Amino acid sequence: MNPSLIAEAAALAEQRAPDFIRRTPLWKMPGASVGIDCAEVWLKLEHLQTSGSFKARGMLNRLLANPIPSAGVIVASGGNAGIATAAAAKALGVKCEVFVPTLSSPSKQAKLRQLGAQLVVTGAVYAEALEACLARQKETGALLTHAYDQPEVVAGAGTLAKEVEEQGGGAPDSVLVSVGGGGLIAGVASWFEQRARVVALEPELAPTLHCAREKGEPVDVPVSGIAADSLGAKRIGSIAWEIASRHVAEALLLPDAAIREAQLWLWKQMKLAVEPAAALPLAALHTGAYKPARDETVCLIVCGANLDPATLA
Amino acid sequence: MNPSLIAEAAALAEQRAPDFIRRTPLWKMPGASVGIDCAEVWLKLEHLQTSGSFKARGMLNRLLANPIPSAGVIVASGGNAGIATAAAAKALGVKCEVFVPTLSSPSKQAKLRQLGAQLVVTGAVYAEALEACLARQKETGALLTHAYDQPEVVAGAGTLAKEVEEQGGGAPDSVLVSVGGGGLIAGVASWFEQRARVVALEPELAPTLHCAREKGEPVDVPVSGIAADSLGAKRIGSIAWEIASRHVAEALLLPDAAIREAQLWLWKQMKLAVEPAAALPLAALHTGAYKPARDETVCLIVCGANLDPATLA
Repeated sequence: MNPSLIAEAAALAEQRAPDFIRRTPLWKMPGASVGIDCAEVWLKLEHLQTSGSFKARGMLNRLLANPIPSAGVIVASGGNAGIATAAAAKALGVKCEVFVPTLSSPSKQAKLRQLGAQLVVTGAVYAEALEACLARQKETGALLTHAYDQPEVVAGAGTLAKEVEEQGGGAPDSVLVSVGGGGLIAGVASWFEQRARVVALEPELAPTLHCAREKGEPVDVPVSGIAADSLGAKRIGSIAWEIASRHVAEALLLPDAAIREAQLWLWKQMKLAVEPAAALPLAALHTGAYKPARDETVCLIVCGANLDPATLA
Repeated sequence: MNPSLIAEAAALAEQRAPDFIRRTPLWKMPGASVGIDCAEVWLKLEHLQTSGSFKARGMLNRLLANPIPSAGVIVASGGNAGIATAAAAKALGVKCEVFVPTLSSPSKQAKLRQLGAQLVVTGAVYAEALEACLARQKETGALLTHAYDQPEVVAGAGTLAKEVEEQGGGAPDSVLVSVGGGGLIAGVASWFEQRARVVALEPELAPTLHCAREKGEPVDVPVSGIAADSLGAKRIGSIAWEIASRHVAEALLLPDAAIREAQLWLWKQMKLAVEPAAALPLAALHTGAYKPARDETVCLIVCGANLDPATLA
């Protein structure tokens, strides 16, 4: 993806919804502050983004870059993508229908209703809710948002990387990014291209990009584990696959125990309350899965905070 | 207090303990992002400071500005001041004794032990723990740290204001600061003097500065309520009183319900997990107790995050 599409997405958000996307803090510190022997660690605190995750950037861009039919927008997701779509639709004053399976948590359903979304609870699992969503979309003609595999969604996610470069006064040497369906890393890698080393991180129990690299093409993988509610896509997106093949240096796997330990460390030592998916970059440093050079500046994308805070106690 | 003492405290921390004090993020946003009709709101995310509160700045400075006896340092506090003293002592490799009353929470006692402090649990209430601490100090000659009423502690707290001005590219129009014993506001007001309007915020149930202003001198007040564990000093410190009389514009009171509502808003809308004391500045905006002008830039000091995260659920 051409970086100019990312710059356009940033300009569009600025013009059309100036109070919606937050310029989240980039927190710079010596590597020693997180126990790592490298020059600098930058924490991009994107879990403080509107809707509690980076997804707001992509969903807003999908809505702004397309004419919105009178039927509004429609999405199948009980997680961050659904919440971000509903929040963007609310900000723009358009209708929003969200399909979630019956197993989705009551607290997320309440959150979606609170954002004004029309909620349709149907199907035992996600695939059934998606099927019902697609049938409904054909009927109404509403604009469909996909959690990661749409160019406007990837371009919106890329605005995060543009912001990091502006706030940092230049590109970092490396950027560590969690991967589910790959929307975020596709945006980040498209922005930096070869100007920063982009490293993909996945739970061992949700290895979509890792398995695709092994097989030479996207494949379905079984997903489970601590971060499955946000990194639990079954297959890497086709856009992400194409971009990652050119611009992602490596795809590392992390065990759930290390992810959980990093999540608790971020709370206890740094007072950052984040969901497991957001802890993979730090887990990669703390386990040594990724070893920066001593003079390296590493940027960790802290991507979401949709969690029950009681799980940090 | 002369601002040069604050600049000296900042330089000392930088030289002698470069990885201890964090340069916490200053998060700038349009007033509309927090629902207020003013130009800009700056959130100084000082709850992300080492030890979970701004207290680390003052305690480190107290330790660096004095010769430390072989007996080390000593403090009576089961709260943020005790934790900050223990953390600073650990960073400098000196001994630390902390006196807490028997009613102090097991989790805070565990935290203090984890920081390597020698814990003395004695007395039913704080005043008895303090008495035992002072007797012990006479015996050992250890350096005593006070939670707020020592010039080095105030100068250390003032480094936060210096940092805000550097990060903001200038002073804000106004700064909203929570007050317990007054160490933080004394440091902030000493730094800005008349260059920013410094506003004190207190819970209705812990009105130390408010009552002192009414009586014309510091007086003991009964303290209770939601923020008492960190803003529950009985009387405004004498240093703070003297500085506030010259440089603090007003002292506003807030009901516990508004403080709690702002604390929950910061979590739900912004994903900032903070203790009640840190929510007073936003509560002052949301209740209208403080009404900024439309062209005003207001800085809110988000001062601490020593809380049980389950209380946010």
